[in-house]
Amino acid sequence: MKSPSIVILGAGYGGIMTAVKLQKKLGANDAKITLVNKHDYHYQTTWLHENAAGTLHHDRTRLKIADVVNTSRVNFVQDTVTEIKPDEKTVVLENSDLSYDYLVIGLGFEAATFGIPGLEEHAYTINNINSSRLIRQHIEYNFAKYNNEVEKKQERLNIVVGGAGFTGIEFVGELANRVPELCKEYDVPRENVRIINVEAAPTALPGFDPALVEYAMNSLEARGVEFKIGAMIKEVTENQLVFEKDEEREEIPTNTVVWAAGVRGNSLVENAGFESNRGRTPVDGQLRPKGYEDVFIVGDCSLIMNEETGRPYPPTAQIAIQQAEFLADNLAGKIRGGGHEEDFVPNIQGTVASLGDDDAIGVVFDGKKLFGWQASAMKKIIDNRYLLKLGGLPLVLKKGKLNFFNF
Amino acid sequence: MKSPSIVILGAGYGGIMTAVKLQKKLGANDAKITLVNKHDYHYQTTWLHENAAGTLHHDRTRLKIADVVNTSRVNFVQDTVTEIKPDEKTVVLENSDLSYDYLVIGLGFEAATFGIPGLEEHAYTINNINSSRLIRQHIEYNFAKYNNEVEKKQERLNIVVGGAGFTGIEFVGELANRVPELCKEYDVPRENVRIINVEAAPTALPGFDPALVEYAMNSLEARGVEFKIGAMIKEVTENQLVFEKDEEREEIPTNTVVWAAGVRGNSLVENAGFESNRGRTPVDGQLRPKGYEDVFIVGDCSLIMNEETGRPYPPTAQIAIQQAEFLADNLAGKIRGGGHEEDFVPNIQGTVASLGDDDAIGVVFDGKKLFGWQASAMKKIIDNRYLLKLGGLPLVLKKGKLNFFNF
Repeated sequence: MKSPSIVILGAGYGGIMTAVKLQKKLGANDAKITLVNKHDYHYQTTWLHENAAGTLHHDRTRLKIADVVNTSRVNFVQDTVTEIKPDEKTVVLENSDLSYDYLVIGLGFEAATFGIPGLEEHAYTINNINSSRLIRQHIEYNFAKYNNEVEKKQERLNIVVGGAGFTGIEFVGELANRVPELCKEYDVPRENVRIINVEAAPTALPGFDPALVEYAMNSLEARGVEFKIGAMIKEVTENQLVFEKDEEREEIPTNTVVWAAGVRGNSLVENAGFESNRGRTPVDGQLRPKGYEDVFIVGDCSLIMNEETGRPYPPTAQIAIQQAEFLADNLAGKIRGGGHEEDFVPNIQGTVASLGDDDAIGVVFDGKKLFGWQASAMKKIIDNRYLLKLGGLPLVLKKGKLNFFNF
Repeated sequence: MKSPSIVILGAGYGGIMTAVKLQKKLGANDAKITLVNKHDYHYQTTWLHENAAGTLHHDRTRLKIADVVNTSRVNFVQDTVTEIKPDEKTVVLENSDLSYDYLVIGLGFEAATFGIPGLEEHAYTINNINSSRLIRQHIEYNFAKYNNEVEKKQERLNIVVGGAGFTGIEFVGELANRVPELCKEYDVPRENVRIINVEAAPTALPGFDPALVEYAMNSLEARGVEFKIGAMIKEVTENQLVFEKDEEREEIPTNTVVWAAGVRGNSLVENAGFESNRGRTPVDGQLRPKGYEDVFIVGDCSLIMNEETGRPYPPTAQIAIQQAEFLADNLAGKIRGGGHEEDFVPNIQGTVASLGDDDAIGVVFDGKKLFGWQASAMKKIIDNRYLLKLGGLPLVLKKGKLNFFNF
């Protein structure tokens, strides 16, 4: 009997963890495992805002897939997925086709720009290594240009971040730390630089405890971040952003708009014909989309409901990793016998938002609130634990966040 | 009797060395010395190509004027010169006017673009800290953009340098070393990047010994530099450079043209009414322009003839420094009695062109040719000797090139 073929699309949190766990749980003859990814590296999406701000080098954020995946057990294909055909049990790549017995989709998110005029053309997004590195360089380039122009252009020094959700807040926290360094590097007075966060909702970090939100805003404002809360972005052009707040229209001259206010699941998922809402597909307790027994979706492309609140869980690395571990158990069980009986339920252990290198806010599983360096240490512990799961202690030592004591 | 007032314009090699030497030779009551400079720092123009390539940080190249000039003895004015009125013995600055008894002009060079269409608008120049830092960032920005575009644009990775004189050759030497680092940083294959040097003359490094020129070109070509010798640049646009060679027209797609093929003296000098040829004013043995007993010109704005060849000496740091030392002696002599009897004659001790960190070519005073690491070490010794003169051993230790042993 031919061993079944498992194809995993994407080496993000969900995809790579599925591959790493499966290679441990399955024997060499149990299944043929193929992992497909665009690049030969995995990266931690939750660190990209640091790469974009320039406070952490992107090589700290990424790791070679071959360093954590045993490529003699898992067939790694570096290629780009162009189409998923679930009824033909086939995936189309740019350079080949793959057929599967079991498909795991972990294709991550895309930016959602909600049709705001000019946003897609002119705003930068913290999506991946390439786009984050470009933001870092774009900001530096504008600082470098500033002093080379006789007529000084304020739009070079105004950085506008759209969205005060998790990514937006974490990014301005890093920027607030980075800007004084940039000012020194490019001989620009700090008071000439503005960091402006524009958020449409009536509060920053919606869903977070108000006391924590206040702490976060105070910490960021003390470092020079300006907040425009309840402000709708109306238009972005090459050198300005227009927003409306309290029925007043305001224009900010800027060459640098970073859009961190909306994500959606990968379009390939809805193009495949799965029921989906902005690229996120509702999955059952076994992480399967409706109507398919052999397809599993993990991470940002999957949508699971929080029974307590009646609303979907927001997509996080935490959930993607838990889904991957659950799925690897489940698939190994299906193949070797003894699969899961129970449904997947996320076990939310806490949520921490970084405000820069040594400051953060967070809530841990028992509802306890954390501030400042304790929350920051907590965040680093979470990040290191992930690396421990993925590649053991050597990976933690190589790529972990071990700078606990710089406060 | 009121002590005379000496005004020094520019804190380049000539200006700052004049100030430093005068503060040693004159007593506090002998003269009032004022040094005017746009920035509060001095920089080594001969190192700027390294800042532009990104192989040396610009903070290594510059030093605070107040760190080498005794500001209790020399009045430092940070301002920009807008006009020199030698008949009124006055200098107009952006924010004030200065009158003088003796004027020392050391205002350096500007790029000369010879009316080549598009060069002034689209080419970058290695003129000062700001413009060199911008080149570094411009190149990095294009590398960062490359991977973010679906349709790859070769013009982002083609770097064209106009001119294979001293600066052009030294710059491509640094670039050849830098590009592999950039490729790693931005995930770009090295073979996709081109470094192209375009020179109108029939040889690179005109005036240099042909054996040394051949060594230099071999060293650079081995590191991937392409030479277009005898090629006239016809036009530069935002994303291409057109040149003509052997009556054939060729277009290179490029966003990055660095113009290193022509300099002229500062326009302020010819605007002042001194006889001048492209901003360079012929000076007598006392470094004075014709008709003025109280004006001295040092460095790139002065023109002195080489009696042996019947042609002007090319402007170099070496000559500027020697002029400054001569002039400081001379002026101190005028003021305290016992000035120079003899005329200024440059003492050319050698010429070394760097080809990157550990390679160079050079000719020393006795005509001996140097290659490779010996020439490279010679260059570093010259640079360190200048720092020694300017600020003593502490400055050599702080800003010197002490990495002799990395070959």
